[in-house]
Amino acid sequence: MNFSISTSVFATAVGMTDRAINASSPQPSLRGIKIQAVNDSLILTGSNADISIMKTLHSDEENNLTIVEEGTILIESKYLLDIVRKMDSSIMTIEVIDGALTRFSGDRAVFKINGLNALDYPTIDFSKPGDTVTMPCSMLKDIIEQTTFATALKETRPVLTGVNFRLDDHILRCTGTDSYRLAKKTFPFNVDGSFNVTIPSRTLNDVKATMLDQGEEVIEISLSDKKAQFNIEDMVLQTRLLDGTFPDVDRLIPSSFDYVLSINRNELIRSIDRTTFIRSDNMSINRLQCSENEVILTSKSQEIGESRENLDCTFNGNDLDISFSGNYVIDAARALRGENITVNFSGDMRPFVLKDEDDESVIQLVLPLRTYN
Amino acid sequence: MNFSISTSVFATAVGMTDRAINASSPQPSLRGIKIQAVNDSLILTGSNADISIMKTLHSDEENNLTIVEEGTILIESKYLLDIVRKMDSSIMTIEVIDGALTRFSGDRAVFKINGLNALDYPTIDFSKPGDTVTMPCSMLKDIIEQTTFATALKETRPVLTGVNFRLDDHILRCTGTDSYRLAKKTFPFNVDGSFNVTIPSRTLNDVKATMLDQGEEVIEISLSDKKAQFNIEDMVLQTRLLDGTFPDVDRLIPSSFDYVLSINRNELIRSIDRTTFIRSDNMSINRLQCSENEVILTSKSQEIGESRENLDCTFNGNDLDISFSGNYVIDAARALRGENITVNFSGDMRPFVLKDEDDESVIQLVLPLRTYN
Repeated sequence: MNFSISTSVFATAVGMTDRAINASSPQPSLRGIKIQAVNDSLILTGSNADISIMKTLHSDEENNLTIVEEGTILIESKYLLDIVRKMDSSIMTIEVIDGALTRFSGDRAVFKINGLNALDYPTIDFSKPGDTVTMPCSMLKDIIEQTTFATALKETRPVLTGVNFRLDDHILRCTGTDSYRLAKKTFPFNVDGSFNVTIPSRTLNDVKATMLDQGEEVIEISLSDKKAQFNIEDMVLQTRLLDGTFPDVDRLIPSSFDYVLSINRNELIRSIDRTTFIRSDNMSINRLQCSENEVILTSKSQEIGESRENLDCTFNGNDLDISFSGNYVIDAARALRGENITVNFSGDMRPFVLKDEDDESVIQLVLPLRTYN
Repeated sequence: MNFSISTSVFATAVGMTDRAINASSPQPSLRGIKIQAVNDSLILTGSNADISIMKTLHSDEENNLTIVEEGTILIESKYLLDIVRKMDSSIMTIEVIDGALTRFSGDRAVFKINGLNALDYPTIDFSKPGDTVTMPCSMLKDIIEQTTFATALKETRPVLTGVNFRLDDHILRCTGTDSYRLAKKTFPFNVDGSFNVTIPSRTLNDVKATMLDQGEEVIEISLSDKKAQFNIEDMVLQTRLLDGTFPDVDRLIPSSFDYVLSINRNELIRSIDRTTFIRSDNMSINRLQCSENEVILTSKSQEIGESRENLDCTFNGNDLDISFSGNYVIDAARALRGENITVNFSGDMRPFVLKDEDDESVIQLVLPLRTYN
């Protein structure tokens, strides 16, 4: 194999492919990126068995790809990343010189790396697993930004580490929850049929980082009951789906609210941030005491002291005294977009809901905390 | 106690004083910053027993300090830092409301913190420990930037964790070494007398961060055989000195060189950085093969591969083949300032010296490594 390519284009492609790679994979070949030079194209493949990425570069004026000799190599991704970062020229040449020994050369810099055995690399099936829907990239980006943060980090209930996508009657519902809070985006989606799949949050963030800002308008999503595959021009990313039944969360969401607080979104974030300097176990507990005259946000610790702030907002309803995790409310408010939001309560021990005043599609639900003030 | 002050001025003063504080000090009172309001001044004191800082703010138009009632409080530094960072107003008010309970208030935000018992705070002697010399702040800054990086991090030989300052015959010699490399700055210093003290690198970096960019021209340094004290307008920082005899390093520095490599300083740094992507134990080993025709820099690992680069430089001397830690040479080159430097060798197993072509005051010495290529 022997080809030359724009160093920056190659570096970007390697960086994208590397997102699928686990550098300490027990299977050495999966620590590598497979690079194939075929005809006038370069195909980069990376995988960690759960997620696989295939990135294709066709020779053009921007990437300056010139293939002198076809072939396939497998290079450990961490060295490849280091080499493309350190290369001293705008065009680099990559050549297999002896077996798996591969030379990367620039102006003065020359790197020789012992490649891995490309024959050990698993065969990855990149065929479309099932029905395909298309979606604007901007729509998928919104879904990811507004739901993944609420999914669980711990693997105790694996299905909660992903976002559930459910299509029924031309309505798409995207839900993430860690069982203490819930983010849900619901909107009309003009596709026939139905599906109900849970895609790992990590994959969705990989999709966002590598596929949604590439200048493409739309992304294709193909789904089976085992696999989801995302496709844009020149790039495929696929993942296994999460097993298990996603909990029926709709019944958790209160349908009517007796207390409504209206506030500037940034003001709420800043106020909670100010009053949450007291942390125990890295979690901050805030208390909100609302009446029609004033709304007071406090945080308290017997040992350290307390913080207190009079919120600039309007409140409708009877007196309410409720406690919650400040971080969860900040996350929820950040995931909304508008200038003004409402926080809707139906009781001091009932989940409450943050909504954007100008965008009905998203709700952010947070469970209150029981405290003994 | 009751006073108000510019939040940003107070935040800066707290940040500076905090540098002396060990947040997990076994002595609780030393986790605090002592704040005294006396006459029209505020005095902040922080200490970790080794290093002590006293910062004074006199009422002026910039700091807007207004003292309503004199007094002394002791507040845990980490909470104080959080409060000044989160305060929502440009002027804040600090008031003792009940015993040690202290209220910090801004526009809407109010913080109440349980202070520590100020009577528990140790008495710190800030009198000048001995003779005083003055030095331009810029000179001390150069010394610190060009020597501290070469001192030891490990405490196995405590005296090597500091920079040795030795005055003799109107020559000041400042030396840092971790026994694998050495940085030395020597220059005429028009002060009578002599001293030989070793000041902890950590202290010197604290002095640099808090005292040398405050708009003062000169800094006072007072020395005894136990203590060094640094003084600028409104601020005092003092430290214990390191015990033990600083090694006689002058005999390590070769007096003549048989091989001289002249190179652009940034080019050397970039070339080593490129070739040192192969690391074992977080240390990179580089090999330099010099002849009058070409100078080749390589780095090699049996398992991974190698990198190789033809240096753009001039070399005078017989052929030379020498290995060294790339990081040490990068550190040394960074501590020089000029565009072009020389690397001076006297043999493949002798220490070599980096010098600025335009600045005789600094030498950077690095020991070679023995390898089995």
